[in-house]
Amino acid sequence: MTATGTPRRAGSVRAVHFDGSVLRAVDQTLLPWEKIELSLHDAEEVAAAIRRLAIRGAPLIGVAAGFGVALELRRERTLPALDRACAVLCEARPTAVNLRHAVERVRAAALSVPQGEMQAAALQEAREIEAEEVAASAAMAANGAQLLSGVAAVLTHCNAGALAAPGRGTALAVIAELADRGSLAKVLVTETRPLLQGARLTAYELSALAIAHQLVIDSAAPALIAAGEVQAVVVGCDRVAANGDVANKVGTYSLALAANAAGIPFVVVGPTSTIDPDCPDGGQIEIEERGADEVRSAAGHPTAPVGTDCRNPAFDVTPSHLITALVTERGVARPVDRASVAALCSKR
Amino acid sequence: MTATGTPRRAGSVRAVHFDGSVLRAVDQTLLPWEKIELSLHDAEEVAAAIRRLAIRGAPLIGVAAGFGVALELRRERTLPALDRACAVLCEARPTAVNLRHAVERVRAAALSVPQGEMQAAALQEAREIEAEEVAASAAMAANGAQLLSGVAAVLTHCNAGALAAPGRGTALAVIAELADRGSLAKVLVTETRPLLQGARLTAYELSALAIAHQLVIDSAAPALIAAGEVQAVVVGCDRVAANGDVANKVGTYSLALAANAAGIPFVVVGPTSTIDPDCPDGGQIEIEERGADEVRSAAGHPTAPVGTDCRNPAFDVTPSHLITALVTERGVARPVDRASVAALCSKR
Repeated sequence: MTATGTPRRAGSVRAVHFDGSVLRAVDQTLLPWEKIELSLHDAEEVAAAIRRLAIRGAPLIGVAAGFGVALELRRERTLPALDRACAVLCEARPTAVNLRHAVERVRAAALSVPQGEMQAAALQEAREIEAEEVAASAAMAANGAQLLSGVAAVLTHCNAGALAAPGRGTALAVIAELADRGSLAKVLVTETRPLLQGARLTAYELSALAIAHQLVIDSAAPALIAAGEVQAVVVGCDRVAANGDVANKVGTYSLALAANAAGIPFVVVGPTSTIDPDCPDGGQIEIEERGADEVRSAAGHPTAPVGTDCRNPAFDVTPSHLITALVTERGVARPVDRASVAALCSKR
Repeated sequence: MTATGTPRRAGSVRAVHFDGSVLRAVDQTLLPWEKIELSLHDAEEVAAAIRRLAIRGAPLIGVAAGFGVALELRRERTLPALDRACAVLCEARPTAVNLRHAVERVRAAALSVPQGEMQAAALQEAREIEAEEVAASAAMAANGAQLLSGVAAVLTHCNAGALAAPGRGTALAVIAELADRGSLAKVLVTETRPLLQGARLTAYELSALAIAHQLVIDSAAPALIAAGEVQAVVVGCDRVAANGDVANKVGTYSLALAANAAGIPFVVVGPTSTIDPDCPDGGQIEIEERGADEVRSAAGHPTAPVGTDCRNPAFDVTPSHLITALVTERGVARPVDRASVAALCSKR
């Protein structure tokens, strides 16, 4: 392994890019089997892609939503169009806060200029959000790799890579940086039922990055953590409450319990755009409950008797006391509590 | 719901039965979509069915293995045939101890009589083991239902019903008895990746028993436990060590952590044939690691990039300090420790 100044491994996939008139997005529901690029022309099309998880990952849906507002204003430079775009995008997924943050920023930018310049201002703000997230990814990678310096094996959940956030992602950016620095020998990847983002997307990204990895079913992870197979658990996040409680892909909480019981670090990585200072604690985070068919099937095929009733929360909340550190682009909160999260929010 | 003296709900499926010359077994790998009965004629055929999980569940594989020894002696009444049958059956799956217990009992019975009577003695012992497990299931149901009297919602993992143990099973026998007694309103069922015994088998059994249930992905269970959705977790077991540590289907450990964090009972149900007094603690239990294809696919369809490396432990160990009670046919160990487990073993 090399340890050059520039990262040896770039993110293998550019999940979304705006080409001037359309937002192009890899349809993540089809990876790793098909690499189809969607062309999205307005806010509703962007919102639909976010709802069905063709575009996913808290920072990435924020960036996509920003471009969605700009796209809508390209069709119609009016206040009703702006309001309509913001509403449909904010409602696409309730748990991640980046979506709302990005939409509000682009809306404010559009409203700060004369009506004729709205679209240009919105687009510029969307591009700025994207550039900030790319820079944040690099800074999180450096901060996280410093925190976990020398670690040889980690476990990650879901997908928090280039497919979830601009640049090299969040948790996976830290993991890639650890690999670049030469200490990392192995990554355990949870498959992340029901939609298999770990099996489909993280395994795909780690393979492209040439980082050794092993896939495990979600419920095997706690026992492998207990057996000492990894020295840290590193995950992304969809929303961080003011007290440091974290909403992330369902299953995160059980990994935090296991890491805690094993006495290894449980590290959450996310840009400060993921922090919601208006949300006092995890109990106030709305947890999206998705359709039963996701549970009653896997990879598109039935897993249970027809008509079986299901529960399908898409996220869970990990209380801050189980989180060793929160790694952001502005620095690391450790311990994770109301004071350390507030300090990150006020830092520039 | 009724509360009559005899259980209103019988186990809907007879997983194995010996008809005099063949062991007939429902192929559990095909449920709930196809109900195919296998005809098994010798020890190797029984062992093969156990290895590929057509017959599964610690008590049930013990019973099937007992009949497997008798079948082999039906073909050839010799000591080499007896040794061969015992070896191939004991090696079929390493973690559950019932298999070894049953094979040893049937072997001892065969060796205690003249060679001409070996087969009859073996068959009689196998039938006795089956009858004992049926009686044990009923006793566990009564003991568990008394322990959990009044509970309205429980969560269970994998399948510990009539498809896993003669009679009404172990954990599911307790659940069915709670339903019979009228308190139980809901069962949360974990799908139990990789082979989906919860989604396929437990949902199927609960549906046949007309007990309301909801299916969840494995990693959602800890958050639903934390949210107070159930008042107890009830699971089966594959081996209990002398100190009370329990090996059970992988994923059990994370449920015990979550139940502990939530302050609700974590109850393990199993016949005393599952206790291995020669195994001092969970660290000494051999954990079967199965093939990667189980992880790289779900319901027979690929879930990850071709060739992805996998880990696939089939069981995990839950330390006794996380277990509220061990329910057996002889009574309940509570707390679960070396003394209480030893007391159950010596009880008659």
